Amino acid sequence: MTIPLRIGLAGLGTVGAGVAKILANQADVIGKRAGGSVVVTAVCARSKSKDRGVDLSAFEWFDDPVALATSDAIDVFVELVGGSEGPANDAVTAALKAGKHVVTANKALVALHGATLAPLAEQAGVALNYEAAVAGGIPVIKAIREGLAGNEISRVSGILNGTCNYILTEMEATGRAFDDVLADAQKLGYAEADPSFDVGGIDAAHKLAILASLAFGVTLDFDGLYVEGIEAISAADIDFAKELGYKIRLLGIAARHGAGIEQRVHPVLVPVTSPLAAVTSVVNAVAIEGSAVGSVVLEGPGAGEGPTASAVVGDIIDIARGLVVAPFGILSKDLQPSVTTPIAERVGSYYLRINATDRAGSMAEITKALAEASVSIERIIQSSEPVDAGRLPVVIITHDTQEKAIENALRLLNEHDDVLDQPMMIRVERD
Amino acid sequence: MTIPLRIGLAGLGTVGAGVAKILANQADVIGKRAGGSVVVTAVCARSKSKDRGVDLSAFEWFDDPVALATSDAIDVFVELVGGSEGPANDAVTAALKAGKHVVTANKALVALHGATLAPLAEQAGVALNYEAAVAGGIPVIKAIREGLAGNEISRVSGILNGTCNYILTEMEATGRAFDDVLADAQKLGYAEADPSFDVGGIDAAHKLAILASLAFGVTLDFDGLYVEGIEAISAADIDFAKELGYKIRLLGIAARHGAGIEQRVHPVLVPVTSPLAAVTSVVNAVAIEGSAVGSVVLEGPGAGEGPTASAVVGDIIDIARGLVVAPFGILSKDLQPSVTTPIAERVGSYYLRINATDRAGSMAEITKALAEASVSIERIIQSSEPVDAGRLPVVIITHDTQEKAIENALRLLNEHDDVLDQPMMIRVERD
Repeated sequence: MTIPLRIGLAGLGTVGAGVAKILANQADVIGKRAGGSVVVTAVCARSKSKDRGVDLSAFEWFDDPVALATSDAIDVFVELVGGSEGPANDAVTAALKAGKHVVTANKALVALHGATLAPLAEQAGVALNYEAAVAGGIPVIKAIREGLAGNEISRVSGILNGTCNYILTEMEATGRAFDDVLADAQKLGYAEADPSFDVGGIDAAHKLAILASLAFGVTLDFDGLYVEGIEAISAADIDFAKELGYKIRLLGIAARHGAGIEQRVHPVLVPVTSPLAAVTSVVNAVAIEGSAVGSVVLEGPGAGEGPTASAVVGDIIDIARGLVVAPFGILSKDLQPSVTTPIAERVGSYYLRINATDRAGSMAEITKALAEASVSIERIIQSSEPVDAGRLPVVIITHDTQEKAIENALRLLNEHDDVLDQPMMIRVERD
Repeated sequence: MTIPLRIGLAGLGTVGAGVAKILANQADVIGKRAGGSVVVTAVCARSKSKDRGVDLSAFEWFDDPVALATSDAIDVFVELVGGSEGPANDAVTAALKAGKHVVTANKALVALHGATLAPLAEQAGVALNYEAAVAGGIPVIKAIREGLAGNEISRVSGILNGTCNYILTEMEATGRAFDDVLADAQKLGYAEADPSFDVGGIDAAHKLAILASLAFGVTLDFDGLYVEGIEAISAADIDFAKELGYKIRLLGIAARHGAGIEQRVHPVLVPVTSPLAAVTSVVNAVAIEGSAVGSVVLEGPGAGEGPTASAVVGDIIDIARGLVVAPFGILSKDLQPSVTTPIAERVGSYYLRINATDRAGSMAEITKALAEASVSIERIIQSSEPVDAGRLPVVIITHDTQEKAIENALRLLNEHDDVLDQPMMIRVERD
C-alpha cells in the first residue's frame, strides 16, 4: 500500500458521514490493523454547506464525482452516491479505468453493472469491494468469497431486506394492516418515501443476484430473477399462517436446480420453528449450504449508518492490507453463463387463500378444481367467520407440487363462480 | 503466488484426508478461485500403509513433520497433527522460520504458543492462518480480523464446543444424566475417549483466548482465563432451569470490563427466548458486538471432517490469493498486554440449587444466609418432592449481584447444618 492510503468519499449522507467519523475517531487502531494510516483526503457531495456532524475542512472538495474518482489526490474511491445509472456508474467506471480501488455500498449498481465493472477492476489489478451492498454489516460477501472458498455452494437464502422484515414482523406482532405499518416504517426511517424498491422485492433481488453470481460462479442475471413483493400480504394471511404453524417472511433463494440456478425473491411461509421465523424487525439473515461445511447462518443488522459504514471501512482496510480478490471470486472470463431456472419449475408446497361464496357446495367446487389441476391438499381450513357478507375464506396448504400445477389450479379457480376474488398464493419453504 | 502453490500436509486423520480430497476433487474451481493451481506435494503421518480413502502415491512421504515443514517441496505447511507441544509446535516453528506459510486447525497450539509463533510469521512475511481452530467451519476469525475490522469490539461470546452443546441439549431433550449422555456421545464420535478437554471447558477456553486476543488487540492470556466445565450439571438443574424459563449452555464470554477484559468459560442459564437457547446439538454460534455494526451472530457446524477441512482449504486459498494478514490482526508488538478481569468482579444474576434438610425453618435459614451476604432473591422454588429421604431442593435465581457476594453466600450456606451438600451455582446471562 501507499502510506497513507488516501480515500475519496463520494456521497456524504449518513453512511458517508459515518465512514468519515470511523476513519477519524479510530485512526489509531485502524492504522495498526491496516498496516499504515488511512485518511480521507477528498470528498464530493451535493451541498457543501450542510452540517453533517463531521469536520470537512481538511478535505479537498469536489462537485463532480467523476473528477473525484480520477483525482491524483486519492487511492481508493468510495461510492456512496446511490442509483444504478448516472453519476454512480460514471464515477465508478472512471475510477476503475484510472486504476483506483473502489468500495461501494450500491447493490443496484453491482447487480446491474457488475458484469461491466468487474473486468475493469481485474484489468487494473484493483479491488471492487461491495460488502456493504448485501446484508449491511454482516460480512457475507467475504464469507462466501473467501471463508467458504473451499466449498461448492448448493444454496444461499435469506432475509435480505430489513424494511420488508420490519413490516411483516410488525404486522405479525400487532395484527395491523400493511399500509398502516408501512406508514409507520416511513416515519421511523425504516422505509423510503417511495417504498417500491423495498416492498416490491427489487432491493432484495439486487442482493440475491449478487449472492448467486458469487456463490455459483455464474454471470449476474438480475433480469432472469423472479421477484414478487409483499404488498399483497394481508393481516388475514399472517393470521392464517400462524394458525397453521407458519410465519411469513420475504425470502431470497438461490439454489442449484438441475442444470440451472433458481433465483427467486418472494414472500414465503416458514415453519415457526425455523431459524428464519426468529428473525424479526430490520435484522437480516443469510444461510449458506456448502459441500464441505454444511449449513452456516450469518445474522445481523442489514442496514443503517453504523452497519453499512462498518462494511465500507472493512472493505477499505482490506485494500490497505493489500487483500485484493476478483470481485466475484473468480475472474469474470471464468464465470459460467447464468442459466436461471424458471419459477414454473419450482416444486414445493403452497398456501392458498380463496374467498368463496358462503353457500353449501362452494368448498366442494374448490377442492374439485384443485383435483383437476392435480394439486393435492395437505391441510384445509374453512373459517366460520365471513370476511364480509357472503365471503368465506378457505385456506389450503398443498402437498409438494409443481408451480405449473398451481398456476393451472389458480386459473381454474378464477374461472369459477364460487370464487369471488383473485385467490392469494404464497409459497411454503420448509428447509 | 508461486504456481502451483505446493501444500505439505502433516497429519492424515479425517480432517487431513478431507483436505486432500477437496483439493483433488475441486481442483478446477479452486484453481480459478486461487488464481492458479493448488496441489498437495508432500505428506507426513504416523502410518504410511493405512487406507485413508485418498490416493497418496503422488505425494512425497515424510516420517518427520519438521522435515516436511522445512522441505523445499512445499510452500505452505498444513499442521493437522494436534497437541500444543512436541511435533506440532516444533514443525510449525520450523516452517515459519523457513519462511513457509502455515495453516493449522490446532486451537491449543495457537492459544498457548501464538505469542511466540505470530512474530515469526510477521518477520517472515508469511501467513499463520487458523480459521479451523475456532468454531470449525464458521468463518469467524476472518469475520473479526477482516470483515469487522472497522469496529471496536466490546464483546465476543458463544457456544464454542460442540461436544458440550450436544451433551447439554441431549440431556435437555431426554432427561438423562450427564454420564449416560457422555457415553453415547463417545459412541457417536462426538466426544473423545478422554473427554476432559471438552467437558472440562479447556477446548472452549483455548478458542475463547484466541477470539479475545483477536477481538480486543490484546496478548493471549489462556492462563488468566476462568474455566469451568459441565461435569457437575445434573438433570435436576436442567429441569429447574426449564421451569424458570432458561436453558443451560456452556458459554465462552470475552468482554471489555472496566480497564480489563473479562474472559470466562462456564455453564450459564440463558433465557429460552435467547438465540443461543435455539442452538442445539454440535452446532456452534458466536455473537460479536461491534461499535459500528451492532450485533452479528454466526452459526454453523463447529467440528467434524467437512467443516474443519472447509476452513483449512479457505485458509490455503487465501494464501494462494496473496491475502496475508498479521495472525492477530495487528502486529504482535502492537498487542496490548492482556489485563484479565478476575471472575470475582463479575456482576450478574445467579442460579443456586441447595439441598436442605426437610424440616420447617430450613428455608428461613437459607434466605437469612443470603441476606447476610447481601444477595437478594429474584425467584425461589422449593420443590415439594425430596431428592431423597430428608433432602429438599431449594432453587433460587438472584437479582444482579457481584460474584464476590455469591462466594460469600456459598461459604455461609456451606457452614450451615440445614444445607446438606455443596450448593450448585450456575451464572445467569441475559444478554
